[in-house]
Amino acid sequence: MRVVVLRYGHRISRDKRITTHVALVARAFGAEGIYIYGEYDESVARSLDNVVETWGGLFWNEWVDDYVSAIQNWKKEGGTVVHLTMYGRDLEEVMSEVSLKDRIMVFVGSSKVPPEVYRLADYNIAIGHQPHSEVAALAVFLDRLFRGQELMKRFNGARFTILPSKAGKIVHETQDEKNNKRDGRSASKGG
Amino acid sequence: MRVVVLRYGHRISRDKRITTHVALVARAFGAEGIYIYGEYDESVARSLDNVVETWGGLFWNEWVDDYVSAIQNWKKEGGTVVHLTMYGRDLEEVMSEVSLKDRIMVFVGSSKVPPEVYRLADYNIAIGHQPHSEVAALAVFLDRLFRGQELMKRFNGARFTILPSKAGKIVHETQDEKNNKRDGRSASKGG
Repeated sequence: MRVVVLRYGHRISRDKRITTHVALVARAFGAEGIYIYGEYDESVARSLDNVVETWGGLFWNEWVDDYVSAIQNWKKEGGTVVHLTMYGRDLEEVMSEVSLKDRIMVFVGSSKVPPEVYRLADYNIAIGHQPHSEVAALAVFLDRLFRGQELMKRFNGARFTILPSKAGKIVHETQDEKNNKRDGRSASKGG
Repeated sequence: MRVVVLRYGHRISRDKRITTHVALVARAFGAEGIYIYGEYDESVARSLDNVVETWGGLFWNEWVDDYVSAIQNWKKEGGTVVHLTMYGRDLEEVMSEVSLKDRIMVFVGSSKVPPEVYRLADYNIAIGHQPHSEVAALAVFLDRLFRGQELMKRFNGARFTILPSKAGKIVHETQDEKNNKRDGRSASKGG
């Protein structure tokens, strides 16, 4: 299954951290990349690239200047568009149907999403009907879609990987193939 | 089951929206309130109070000036403390054990959490071992804890409730008991 995210309406002054969290969730929960529509924000792009460089995988970010075309192109190629909104249908009601799709674009907005998005989307889905967070909505949607398997995903080419720990931090540093400066080793530190 | 959240390390300059999202997720996903440790931020407190006034329920927010005491008091009263961290144990491994507890404090930090928190917590749990978001971590943890039932929760005293919709917004305005200005009615609008 291929999943991409479309983040709508990024504003540099206000959304820097939320958009970054949306993108990191997309990556960590199994999406292959994120389209971002809104003001181009180099600091967000750079921090996402840094995460990929450090923690691995091939997650991409791409700014788009026409979100309608991005949606329409995805649909033209046979993809399904899911818009996450508190006004949508109950997650439980549609999840089994959506899980059968093999190409999903998840659209997450900032506060104001234009009415046309509700019509362009194949599914408008609510992760509860209370106001909360697009970061949370995306995480829960992907967690349900991948049935928790996304949390076990390994990312190729990571400089660091974490080993589960009861009460500390265990970070494994893998060999840096590009620079070949040092060998792989494990470091464990309290807290 | 009683669940509260402790948000550690709020900085006005940087965390306004993330802390608000953390708190809204806490409310929407079934916690009864949130303790916030860090710089007191009236705008966050006010926006949370506004959400409760509009969307119902009894969700509280309380700033604390000593997070260690907050944790210790919770434990003294028989409560369990769960710290969400990418360095912790796998969610799958501990969830069945944690689900048996009847009073849970979920600790979510900003970037730097002091080492003592890892020792004070009864459980350090990772929602995946990749960097992403405390908003997402909290949502997925609570979604697993309440097995999706939290998304069906009703909030008493709401001025507005949302009815699920395929492609629009259906908001039901309930009678405002305080002011008794108008009767309950439904409004439906496209988009």
